[in-house]
Parts: sequence; structure tokens; C-alpha cells
Amino acid sequence: MTYCVGMLVDAGIVMLSDTRTNAGVDNIATFHKLSIFEKPGERAIALMVAGNLSITQSVLGLLREQLHEHDEKHLLNVDTMLDAARCVGDAVRQIHARDGKALEDFKIEFNVSMVLGGQIKGETPRLFNIYPAGNFIEASEDTCYFQIGETKYGKPIIDRVINRKTHLERAVKCGLISMDSTIRSNLTVSPPIDVVVIRTDELRIGSHQVIEDENPYFHHIRTRWGDSLGQAFLELPDPDWIQKAG
Amino acid sequence: MTYCVGMLVDAGIVMLSDTRTNAGVDNIATFHKLSIFEKPGERAIALMVAGNLSITQSVLGLLREQLHEHDEKHLLNVDTMLDAARCVGDAVRQIHARDGKALEDFKIEFNVSMVLGGQIKGETPRLFNIYPAGNFIEASEDTCYFQIGETKYGKPIIDRVINRKTHLERAVKCGLISMDSTIRSNLTVSPPIDVVVIRTDELRIGSHQVIEDENPYFHHIRTRWGDSLGQAFLELPDPDWIQKAG
Repeated sequence: MTYCVGMLVDAGIVMLSDTRTNAGVDNIATFHKLSIFEKPGERAIALMVAGNLSITQSVLGLLREQLHEHDEKHLLNVDTMLDAARCVGDAVRQIHARDGKALEDFKIEFNVSMVLGGQIKGETPRLFNIYPAGNFIEASEDTCYFQIGETKYGKPIIDRVINRKTHLERAVKCGLISMDSTIRSNLTVSPPIDVVVIRTDELRIGSHQVIEDENPYFHHIRTRWGDSLGQAFLELPDPDWIQKAG
Repeated sequence: MTYCVGMLVDAGIVMLSDTRTNAGVDNIATFHKLSIFEKPGERAIALMVAGNLSITQSVLGLLREQLHEHDEKHLLNVDTMLDAARCVGDAVRQIHARDGKALEDFKIEFNVSMVLGGQIKGETPRLFNIYPAGNFIEASEDTCYFQIGETKYGKPIIDRVINRKTHLERAVKCGLISMDSTIRSNLTVSPPIDVVVIRTDELRIGSHQVIEDENPYFHHIRTRWGDSLGQAFLELPDPDWIQKAG
């Protein structure tokens, strides 16, 4: 399984992904699911993938191959993030055209979803969610984040604290707490965690760090968040109407 | 959709269920998903159901019919909760034998799951999770709760605060917070919420209340829980390592 979340705020973009890949619980490996396409001063793009590893690797392989074809549109020469999303969607469709039927013969679902975020000179930062059919949606003022993979455990905290005004540091903190909730509930989501920050108008990757399980900051907020939740729960009044009804 | 949770603690059993049923977003109705089978002084049993409404109603209808057949085992005459779970599992299998093929012809999944909890004189309280095949598992010291329906959003808080030593009032509070997280994230889960408490060795339903949206206690803990999470989030240190990597 996988958990990735991308958040678009006024100050930029934050993207986090776990690195656990499994084919059954006895076949677990670490693959980074976050790829970077960058031309400092001109564009900073990051792509996170979830789904069948052979499909996601095929799509990424194709997108990287395209970078050497100077006559074609690719992630390092398109003029807009919308065109970048189209490139990724087209790559998904090409892989589907090549592998879809063969996978179907083995009853393997064509399972792939992606979050694409970044900024190209001349635009503001943009964030897209790309589906297995190669279609996509874009984040807006109202919906400023996308999740892929094991999304539910980590969704409530994002809904409660993230909006377009959230600072980048807070968005990273929220993403790590969201990741922690997911890791606690799904054994197949696991550190290390890739964290990428793209600041508005910097046109370069502002930060790309790999957070290991024993990272002191991650360890600290995991522990304190758990303690705070426990404390907040204790401080809520217990129901006094249960006895009455007895 | 549905969300139900049953918790077994030393002090007894707490069961909560929402009441929203839908067949597409334009066809939404309220059906209680929690049924009680009680002989005060001898047994107190509650059953929560999730899945296809026609299937869950058929199973419940059969279980209620059986109560009038004096030669047969049913929920009001079996000697143990294990036999009660077998009764429910057998009822699921009977409905599957009658309706399974016809539903399959219309590509309708035989979707039903149940949480059965209670105490029969001579035993301690017991809690079971019953599957569509009529098989079931029982709660233990390690796993003392079961969820059915839309389970993921409300799972993290239960994992953090519930164990066998938890007081019944706290278990109710936790169940309501878990329900709130689910309601916020899934529009098809909704109040009123059925809440049943069975106290160990009382051998009757200790409390059965229907919590409406505007219930003052539910409103209070929903609001304060949200505020507390926001405050706890703010109080966690922001990452200071993002700037460094810029």
C-alpha cells in the first residue's frame, strides 16, 4: 500500500509520500514514490505515484525517456502545469494501451493514481490528481489537497487544519501527523517518508528530505501528538446521561 | 453507508451505530441498525448490521421470526453468546441460500456484516464480528472492539484510547468522537446515533439512547474535540529543518 498527500497553499506546495511497497505481506520492499523534475529558475515539479508498482514504474520510465526527445512535449519543456498534467495523463494512457489487456487477462486491475504538483515560470503553483484513465482534476481554493493510496486514516486532521493560508511549515507538520495516523492503522504504509517543499515563485525545489523512522522531529511530534490527543480526550466531559437511563 | 462500532471492556459493552441508509445520493433514509434481544435478569443482547438493507432486514426478520419457534434455538433461548453468534451466522447463511443467486444475477454483492454483543447469565459479556459467509470472530483481550461499515476515519481515536480497563462512560465518549470523525468525512454516515450500554452482570440493557444531531452533549464534545485538536496541532513545534535545506 501507499500513502501520499499533496497540499497547495498560497505559500507553495508540500508533498509527502511513504516508501513501502508490498505484494502480499511476505514481500515488502522500499521504493521511493516521489520523483522530481526541476530546472532551477524555470520550473520545479514533483510527481507522486500510487498503485501497481509495475504500472507506476512504467509510467515514470516513459516520462523520463521523453525528457531526451527534443521534438516532443515533456515535463521539462511544457509551458504550463496543465500541459504537464496532460503529459502524465498521456503517459498513463500509453502504458494502458500497451499493458492493459495483458494485465486484464490475469485479472490484474490497471491501478495507478498520481499527484502532480509544481510551478512553471509565468504561472502560480498548481496541483493535480491524475486517474488511471489519464484524466485529472486540479486543486482549487475550496479543495487544496489531494491524497492517493490509503487515504482515509489521515484525512480528518487535514480537513481540520489545512487551508490556503496555512504556512508551509504547518503544512509539513500536518502532513507528518496525517502520515503517522496512517502508519499506525495500516502496516503496509511505512517510513522513510519523502517530504518535498516547493515555495511559491522560487522555481526550484525548496527542500527535499527523507524522514526516517528515528528522525528526532518526527519522533517528537508523533509522541506529543498522541499525548495531546489522549489529554484532550480525558479533558472532554464524560457523558452523565448514561447512568440516568439505567 | 453505515458506521457501527462495538467495544468490549471489563465494565461491559458499548455499541454505537448511525442510522443513515442510502441507495445513491438521491435516495437517503433513516433506518435503525441496532436491534435488542433482552430478557431482563437473564440476558441482554444487541445486534448491529451493515450492508445491503434488503439483506440485513431479511436476516433480522428471520432472527425475529425464530423467537416464536419454541423448538428451535434462537437469541432469547440459547445458553451462550457463542450459540447466539452461531444463530446469527446461520440466519445469514439461510438468507444467502435463498437470495444469493438472484442477487448475483443482478451483480449485487451479498454484502452484510454484523456486530453482536451481550451477556447471557453464567458467562461474562462477549462481542462478535459476523461476516457475510456466516463465520465470525470474537473480541479478545488484545482486540476489544469491532467496527463495520465505513470504519477507517473513526479508527485512529479508538486505537489510541480504548482498552479493556476503559470505563463505560469513556467508551461512549470515544465512540461518539469516532462517529463524529466519520460523519465529517462521509456524507452518507449521519445522526441520529443509537447508543447502547450493557453493564457487566446487570443482565439487562443498561441504557439505550438515540443521540440526535442537536443533542447538547454530542454538540459540546464535537465542538470541543475540534478545538482541542486545533490547539494541540498549533502547540506542536513547527519543523525548523525546512528552511535549512532551502
